[in-house]
Amino acid sequence: MNEYRFEDIHKGLTESFTVTVTADMMEKFKDITGDVNPMHTDSEFASAHGFDDRIAYGMLTSSFLSTLAGVYLPGRNSLIRSVEVKFPKPVMVGDELTVSGEVTDVNDEGRFFDMKIAIRNQNGEKVCRGKMQIGVLE
Amino acid sequence: MNEYRFEDIHKGLTESFTVTVTADMMEKFKDITGDVNPMHTDSEFASAHGFDDRIAYGMLTSSFLSTLAGVYLPGRNSLIRSVEVKFPKPVMVGDELTVSGEVTDVNDEGRFFDMKIAIRNQNGEKVCRGKMQIGVLE
Repeated sequence: MNEYRFEDIHKGLTESFTVTVTADMMEKFKDITGDVNPMHTDSEFASAHGFDDRIAYGMLTSSFLSTLAGVYLPGRNSLIRSVEVKFPKPVMVGDELTVSGEVTDVNDEGRFFDMKIAIRNQNGEKVCRGKMQIGVLE
Repeated sequence: MNEYRFEDIHKGLTESFTVTVTADMMEKFKDITGDVNPMHTDSEFASAHGFDDRIAYGMLTSSFLSTLAGVYLPGRNSLIRSVEVKFPKPVMVGDELTVSGEVTDVNDEGRFFDMKIAIRNQNGEKVCRGKMQIGVLE
């Protein structure tokens, strides 16, 4: 786990990691949320609506932003204040996602920073993009 | 599971449900994401930073928006396009959350709608607020 201090955070600082979406993650996410929507559980339903297979929960994809902030940037001293995400392309079970963040602004008075985020699949396609605002604990 | 059709969606339409945050959800969320940040796993660390106990992952709280869209509004025909959330207050394990959404705008051409969302704890305090844009399948 990274342990960036607030003083270490500067515009342009980046971190990223890679994770593969598994059927077990989908099952656990369904258990947590109770979201039994067939788009995420039923390949036939998803196919009937133009997708190759059932698609991953968008909020599962964005849950990796928790890891980006809490483990990577800033890591240990993280406290997420806000998150904005768009989902331009679907994520499938088995996709290998690269989750990356880049600091775009630092607020010294409030001890928080803004981060631009992007999640790309194994083909380099952006499946999630947005921004986060993250406080840094003393 | 609700099955609102696009034609049923109108400004002011609301749905809500209640869910209690459990230690098991926290464990499953950690398994999915690999977010081992001590704010969510270590009561002493959280106390040292001014919280009563370890706090729930913000992205776990917001994962219930998956359920709000996919099960309640519109339910079966849901496809989340974007999400914006802020976390004004911490959520603790054991908190009973009321997750609610209200349609604020409907886009006929794009077959999507905007929804204002709020998540409140058992004391009526808003722990998450924001908005979502949701497409409705034919």
